[in-house]
Amino acid sequence: MLKRYFPILTWGRDYGRATFEADLVAALIVTIMLIPQALAYALLAGLPAQVGLYASIAPLLAYTLLGTSRTLAVGPVAIISLMTATAVGGLAARGTPEYLGVAVALAFLSGLIFVAMGLLRLGFIAAFLSHPVISGFISATGILIAAGQIKHFLGVGVEAKTLPPMALGLFEHLGGIKPVTVLVSTLVLGFLYWARNQLKPFLEARGLPPRLAGVLARAAPLVAVAGSTAATWALDLEQYGLAVVGHVPQGLPGLALPPLDFALWRELALPALLITIIGYVETISVAQTLAAKRRQRIDPDQELIAQGGINLASAFSGGMPISGGFARSVVNFDAGAATPAAGAFTALGMALATLLLTPALSHLPQTTLAATVFVALASLIDLRALGRVWHYSRSDGVAMFATIVVTLIEGVETGIATGVALSIGLHLWRSSRPHYAVIGQVPGTEHFRNVRRHRVVLAPDVLSIRIDESLWFANARFLEDMIYDAVAADPEVRHLVLNCPAINAIDASALEALEEVNARLTDAGVCLHLSEVKGPVMDRLLRSGLLGALGGQVFLTQFDAMSTLAPALTSETLAQPRCETVR
Amino acid sequence: MLKRYFPILTWGRDYGRATFEADLVAALIVTIMLIPQALAYALLAGLPAQVGLYASIAPLLAYTLLGTSRTLAVGPVAIISLMTATAVGGLAARGTPEYLGVAVALAFLSGLIFVAMGLLRLGFIAAFLSHPVISGFISATGILIAAGQIKHFLGVGVEAKTLPPMALGLFEHLGGIKPVTVLVSTLVLGFLYWARNQLKPFLEARGLPPRLAGVLARAAPLVAVAGSTAATWALDLEQYGLAVVGHVPQGLPGLALPPLDFALWRELALPALLITIIGYVETISVAQTLAAKRRQRIDPDQELIAQGGINLASAFSGGMPISGGFARSVVNFDAGAATPAAGAFTALGMALATLLLTPALSHLPQTTLAATVFVALASLIDLRALGRVWHYSRSDGVAMFATIVVTLIEGVETGIATGVALSIGLHLWRSSRPHYAVIGQVPGTEHFRNVRRHRVVLAPDVLSIRIDESLWFANARFLEDMIYDAVAADPEVRHLVLNCPAINAIDASALEALEEVNARLTDAGVCLHLSEVKGPVMDRLLRSGLLGALGGQVFLTQFDAMSTLAPALTSETLAQPRCETVR
Repeated sequence: MLKRYFPILTWGRDYGRATFEADLVAALIVTIMLIPQALAYALLAGLPAQVGLYASIAPLLAYTLLGTSRTLAVGPVAIISLMTATAVGGLAARGTPEYLGVAVALAFLSGLIFVAMGLLRLGFIAAFLSHPVISGFISATGILIAAGQIKHFLGVGVEAKTLPPMALGLFEHLGGIKPVTVLVSTLVLGFLYWARNQLKPFLEARGLPPRLAGVLARAAPLVAVAGSTAATWALDLEQYGLAVVGHVPQGLPGLALPPLDFALWRELALPALLITIIGYVETISVAQTLAAKRRQRIDPDQELIAQGGINLASAFSGGMPISGGFARSVVNFDAGAATPAAGAFTALGMALATLLLTPALSHLPQTTLAATVFVALASLIDLRALGRVWHYSRSDGVAMFATIVVTLIEGVETGIATGVALSIGLHLWRSSRPHYAVIGQVPGTEHFRNVRRHRVVLAPDVLSIRIDESLWFANARFLEDMIYDAVAADPEVRHLVLNCPAINAIDASALEALEEVNARLTDAGVCLHLSEVKGPVMDRLLRSGLLGALGGQVFLTQFDAMSTLAPALTSETLAQPRCETVR
Repeated sequence: MLKRYFPILTWGRDYGRATFEADLVAALIVTIMLIPQALAYALLAGLPAQVGLYASIAPLLAYTLLGTSRTLAVGPVAIISLMTATAVGGLAARGTPEYLGVAVALAFLSGLIFVAMGLLRLGFIAAFLSHPVISGFISATGILIAAGQIKHFLGVGVEAKTLPPMALGLFEHLGGIKPVTVLVSTLVLGFLYWARNQLKPFLEARGLPPRLAGVLARAAPLVAVAGSTAATWALDLEQYGLAVVGHVPQGLPGLALPPLDFALWRELALPALLITIIGYVETISVAQTLAAKRRQRIDPDQELIAQGGINLASAFSGGMPISGGFARSVVNFDAGAATPAAGAFTALGMALATLLLTPALSHLPQTTLAATVFVALASLIDLRALGRVWHYSRSDGVAMFATIVVTLIEGVETGIATGVALSIGLHLWRSSRPHYAVIGQVPGTEHFRNVRRHRVVLAPDVLSIRIDESLWFANARFLEDMIYDAVAADPEVRHLVLNCPAINAIDASALEALEEVNARLTDAGVCLHLSEVKGPVMDRLLRSGLLGALGGQVFLTQFDAMSTLAPALTSETLAQPRCETVR
């Protein structure tokens, strides 16, 4: 029991020197990558930069205790930070203590929801986010975040959460662009893009071993932070209007308590739920991908509890809502992290950084952090996926397109809600009008195929229909309509055979529809038969009254059905038709 | 085109003497039945009694022009009247002109929604009401209506729309029971129950022909109305506190206009939509049942327009929301109605009744109408259905039970909304965790079956899994989890065969999940193969990148797959395994 909720008790027993060394190296690389990201994502959420550091200490320790993924790296991430900015921005003004309080409350609530979902095993809720909707949402969020950085690059103040007011705001403030800010932004962005693509080969060409070159290349954002901070301090760039992070309190976070304001919690409930689900979907998919590569397992329900634990830890240490990070986890994996202990070592690194770096932050240009966010977004935005999805499935494409457009124009919460509602609605709609085919015998064989796709033979008074979908309430009426139409269209029909190999389930509504069909067809002098009913479906039908009332028979195979009902056609007379109700 | 929207142009051409006589007889019987019902359902809706008569004239003419069912009888019905009382009661006080205005607006809006749904062919929306939810809703509504009549029987004034306040109200008013009212109620109820079960045999035993006896038995409610009215007038029972319908304006309804109040329309939009959907479900099911008995067809989209037409006609003649009536239509059918002209003749009968009867209504006891409603409810309430549904399917039973309980306690609108949400949610939940089976070869055959149900042979390094559900976003994660777990549990596995005969569709999310599974399995040294992929699914997969990236092969049959991957097992060597990625 204890082992289930604290996986550390399992992997901790085998912990040895080799694993320790592997974890330590991975932690060092992740720390280098995480420092600028933590600062940047805190700003993205509208919070003081140090909150990002706070959210990268205690939560990482919590994940080491609770997590089932060996390689997931948790902390502040871009999408959750943007969602935090949206949710908190509606309730408090940026830069106020209330704003921080609401963010902490959001992390706390999200943590509670995670834990509740984990204990109640409600992880399946996340399954109702379709991949195209998630993909569209992530791309749209990426675009929103990218657009939101432009004001930092130009040094103008624009507060907007969706694309149209952002564009309008930037246009209105064109006159207020600060040249020094633009210069610093250009240099930092240029360096980061160069480093992203060229630094590793550059270092390798200079003779560095590939592994070290890779680590140093990952340090580029940290170099940009250090370099631009030093330059700002040395050249006193602040006097030219360059915005800096400014003074932040030194030292480790103390114990914080989320505000006990139930009215506030109620207002935050829906955003917290959305953040929880999006965070979970992202976390579980990266955790599962990495686990599968090493044939390891993760426990989705325990992961919910672990994600709850990290958000509660974040809330109690004055942090913000967080989740597993994709790029960061891949780096952790590639760097050889063997156990969640790597996360604890990263937490140690972040704690040291918090102790040592906070004084230097006062001269760090905000645009440097904006640039690190901007460069990292390339992995989020994938609009070509829209074309791929549309090509494969129109309805998935529609749901994805709507998610993107609504997220950009109406914001993250409306966007994701639209995507979920639309994808579920379209799925229900599709399965409410299933594919079906009138089938006939392929001459000389025991096979039966769609009359529209194959050359087949038919008996004049026997109509065989195959339905390619489970029968349930949304298609029960369709089924009735379809059968009544088919029988009304052909007055010669005396036998209707429903061919059922594709029917995986029949719910109570569809059962009633079949009973109704059977009764009406019997009244009209037509026998209803079933063929190739699956085992589990048959088990259930035996508990109903349908089989007793059936005008016709249940045949094991369609060939049996035709042999009995149209022996001349199949050239075999296996049995005489039994049909009590033919007039 | 004109014929599509006016089916009378089709059936009217063949109209002859025989059809005329059949329709006339049916109309006479339906009129006798409809007069007391129309009065009673108007009172049930909280409206003056004559409104029920008005709603049984113009709308019936409209249905004759627009309807596609030969035998559907439309007019005021119990459930729609109760829903009207609920919707209107929240916005206006009973007995005021505003109350009538809101009811007229509700009929108007419902008519508009019907027509819009018909023109946009949105009839499929009704498919999202599952049968157990409808059945539970109807039973619960029946119980609410029955409980609502008790106050009339006792002569006390209790205004409540759900069960708990009704019971409480009756309990509080026990002291105000009026003995004469209770006496009249008992006599009328006793007569109606006796007539319902005994009158027809009684008359037949007296030598009347069965057909005439049947017609006279149906006249029992009309006899009760006439008898109790005469007794009330003769004995001046009103002085003992017997509530009567009271004075109503004489003559036919004039042209009415629904109030042009957009704020009101907005408030009525949701109730109107619910009334529309419930009315449509009821109407279409009775129309279809009766049409199928004679191998006729109805056009569901045109029926929407017809139902819209009758509600608009009702609104413009000062009526109330109406729909097709179940019992009434069956009577119409049994009486031999051949065309919708029977409805026009019924309208004529109702117009005559309105002209001649309205003076007599002033002494008609309200409890007589309450008794006719009460006796007619027996056909609505069917709580044994709950046991049948529960026995067949737990999740359908849960949805039905919740619908009943919530309707009784929270009212009709919350009840139906709960039922719909719960049944869709449960359906999605079920299909999000599909049935699957590890399959093996039945020795000596080419058949493959569930290892848990049959004695089968397995190859040590080949795992074959059959999934009994279409793959879509809600089960994509389940699919991944299931496969990763299965492969992680058995380190010997080198080939995974997904057996796909039950997969009717694969959406973009599931496709991505399969691509992910393929990539992860390839990384882990396992080949993913597919077998028995259906034609339409294969067509679509060919448009994706999955088949190109697949580690293994696509086999036509599971036997082919095993013959190739485990030739020793199947004792045949049809081909050498092709697997590019085995380490």
